[in-house]
Amino acid sequence: MTTKCLRWGICGAGKISNDFCSAMTTLPDGEHKVVAVAARKLESAKEFGDKFGSEVAYDSYEALSKDPNVDIVYIGTININHMELSLMMLNAGKHVLCEKPMALNMKQAKSVLQLAKQKNLFFMEATWSRCFPIYEKIKAEIASGSLGDVELVTAKFSIPIKDVERIKEKALGGGCMMDIGMYTVQLACMVYDEMPVKITVDGVLNDQGMDEGGCVILKYKGGGMANLTYSGRTCVTQCSASINGTKANIEIPDHFWCPEKATFPSGVVTNEVPEGRHPFNFINSGGMRYEADHARKAILEGKKECEAMSHRHSEMVMTITDEVRKQLGVVYDVD
Amino acid sequence: MTTKCLRWGICGAGKISNDFCSAMTTLPDGEHKVVAVAARKLESAKEFGDKFGSEVAYDSYEALSKDPNVDIVYIGTININHMELSLMMLNAGKHVLCEKPMALNMKQAKSVLQLAKQKNLFFMEATWSRCFPIYEKIKAEIASGSLGDVELVTAKFSIPIKDVERIKEKALGGGCMMDIGMYTVQLACMVYDEMPVKITVDGVLNDQGMDEGGCVILKYKGGGMANLTYSGRTCVTQCSASINGTKANIEIPDHFWCPEKATFPSGVVTNEVPEGRHPFNFINSGGMRYEADHARKAILEGKKECEAMSHRHSEMVMTITDEVRKQLGVVYDVD
Repeated sequence: MTTKCLRWGICGAGKISNDFCSAMTTLPDGEHKVVAVAARKLESAKEFGDKFGSEVAYDSYEALSKDPNVDIVYIGTININHMELSLMMLNAGKHVLCEKPMALNMKQAKSVLQLAKQKNLFFMEATWSRCFPIYEKIKAEIASGSLGDVELVTAKFSIPIKDVERIKEKALGGGCMMDIGMYTVQLACMVYDEMPVKITVDGVLNDQGMDEGGCVILKYKGGGMANLTYSGRTCVTQCSASINGTKANIEIPDHFWCPEKATFPSGVVTNEVPEGRHPFNFINSGGMRYEADHARKAILEGKKECEAMSHRHSEMVMTITDEVRKQLGVVYDVD
Repeated sequence: MTTKCLRWGICGAGKISNDFCSAMTTLPDGEHKVVAVAARKLESAKEFGDKFGSEVAYDSYEALSKDPNVDIVYIGTININHMELSLMMLNAGKHVLCEKPMALNMKQAKSVLQLAKQKNLFFMEATWSRCFPIYEKIKAEIASGSLGDVELVTAKFSIPIKDVERIKEKALGGGCMMDIGMYTVQLACMVYDEMPVKITVDGVLNDQGMDEGGCVILKYKGGGMANLTYSGRTCVTQCSASINGTKANIEIPDHFWCPEKATFPSGVVTNEVPEGRHPFNFINSGGMRYEADHARKAILEGKKECEAMSHRHSEMVMTITDEVRKQLGVVYDVD
């Protein structure tokens, strides 16, 4: 990277890639540019490129990995390809921002994180929540001690997705934990910043053995707890979270994973997420601007990971989701 | 009971009895009358009686049980006396409204419920939440099918009570499940109206082995779940609950166990709880009027239990709290 403009290669021309690129249009001109797009169908890649100002389109991810104009690759394909594409891009010398979950299990995740380290390249799991200004304020608030000792975290993510293909199919690395449940897990990980000493789980599986919903109890060494709820079996619900200390609380209303508002001890804080140049597919996707911005700044500073979602935290979340799946009996072919 | 005025004997002159009697002052004249009060100290009983218009005071619960003017006894003593006093009053031919928990375990509860049946007397566990108009509307809403299939219930009750004597002391039947956790359990029981097929628990105990907090996952045969959170280790928090169906939701904001407000599919419903003639010790205690009213109406109709909190539901809640304590390792001397 020779200029201050981060040149993006985009893997996958689906909904999430659209939202990511549209979110980047809300950032100052000259900071980010989509320079190449790869999709399984060349036509999709071209169409996507036209939309976001990229002149280069590929029908192969490998071709994109060899494009010398690409500084960093955003991986927005289906979950089962995340590890393979991350390894491919890192091996080709590219920085990587990979959609969550960065892999299907800890074994896969380790192989990616090790390669990133070995290649001395930037790698970040796109746990976009962590880069929201309100999440940064939550971290600062906890660090300030104003909550006292944190004793309890609750979070609920429940929306009607159990019948969506990527969720219900074992062959696609399905299940709700890896899609929405992990947002509740990452919040607990951010708050406690350590592994729980005990993980207790129950849930409901579909006929392919993929989890349609579950509840996860995390207990930490100081006695703090997190009680997490996720489900793909309900209609759209109020997905909120709370962080309760001995002295004060933080309440994050719907949508806790991409919040525009939260109540702190000092009062309500708001942060409006902007609209992008092109319509978003998902809620508050404009907030993907924050992870793009974090990635750019980290890379400009020569960092190999993002402080808001470090490799250690990717491993922490994945260790927990591995254990959740183990207790529920959710098994992928690659496990 | 020969008149339409229910004549109450009050066991215990403490905070909760005060609130119950003050709540009854909000009901129409001539429906309820406190006719006798018993406390360990005669002076306390007299003082309490003066406050609530009772001319008879006893320093013995047994003496109260023999008072021919008493139709029904409200038991507002500490938890460890609930079974013994319920048995005493039933054996003396009195109807009983006993504070929750009605006993320390299922064995104790069964002995009371069996005696009530044998004596053909009214017995009700004072799970006052159930009698709130908003709870009645919740039941009706679920029965109407407007939520679709209920797939998820969440409830949180977390307030700083871990160091209160009745909570921390094993000899007093302590622990937070029996004091506040049971409110989250009774909500799940009301919504699903059946026993869960699996109960999964974790929590934190104090040095006497009493639970300072915990998380309870209930799984029902249709795949519905409840994720319940209770803690005595935090500051005062937003204690809310939600009921999520496949078609619609009900949200009960703080204080879910004695609600003045809830959001139904058709909109927000409010129900203001009145102030009593004397100040209350606890939140929304004016709402104890509803259980007094339910008890009176049931007795006038010749019923032996209250539909809103039936014997079956007392047993259901107690079966779950027994299992929660078993999994946590919370043991009482009477277990």
